[in-house]
Amino acid sequence: MTQGVILFAHGSRDPLWRRPMEAVAERARAADPATPVRCAYLELTEPDLPSVATELAGLALAEVTIVPMFLGAGRHVREDLPALVEALRREHPGTRWTLQPPVGEDPRLLDLLAGLALGR
Amino acid sequence: MTQGVILFAHGSRDPLWRRPMEAVAERARAADPATPVRCAYLELTEPDLPSVATELAGLALAEVTIVPMFLGAGRHVREDLPALVEALRREHPGTRWTLQPPVGEDPRLLDLLAGLALGR
Repeated sequence: MTQGVILFAHGSRDPLWRRPMEAVAERARAADPATPVRCAYLELTEPDLPSVATELAGLALAEVTIVPMFLGAGRHVREDLPALVEALRREHPGTRWTLQPPVGEDPRLLDLLAGLALGR
Repeated sequence: MTQGVILFAHGSRDPLWRRPMEAVAERARAADPATPVRCAYLELTEPDLPSVATELAGLALAEVTIVPMFLGAGRHVREDLPALVEALRREHPGTRWTLQPPVGEDPRLLDLLAGLALGR
């Protein structure tokens, strides 16, 4: 086990809000049972990113990839998240913390959403 | 021209936030140039849903499909949006207003996101 994944999402007061994030995590675990996959949230929903990062750092993984589960890329993704990741790098220097682009920038996702919009 | 599409997203103070929504709209228009595709926002970003709905109702479309561009399905999607759509139905009874499930409930989207999470 050398790599882990954190799905990072905004969070909400609504307990149902997180369900799709958990569903994505379950599918990723099913596709690759050897990779620890966790969800973490910026605000309003637990757990937060530092807690999840501490847990994964304790597994002595070489690398943890942080995947921003955001369609729209505003300041949360462009400013708040890089600052959080910089703090993780200082706190846990034994693990390489890699920040992916937000999912909303992936062309395959844009194509799939365009298809859903057209009822396909 | 009998059907239109509204991509409905949350909105943000950040002007860059809307770019992925606009990119999805452009891809949908490219895939089906005969279908009017518009973006509308719940708050903080213009235009709002009633404005866009009034424009599309003026095109005498038989049906307009509203696609919630939300990964997490909280109260905005489960409560605010259905109330807005009910108001559109009263305001513009000549058009059939159809509300799709949020994109975050589509299994293909969940599978794609799980793949992105695993770097695939």
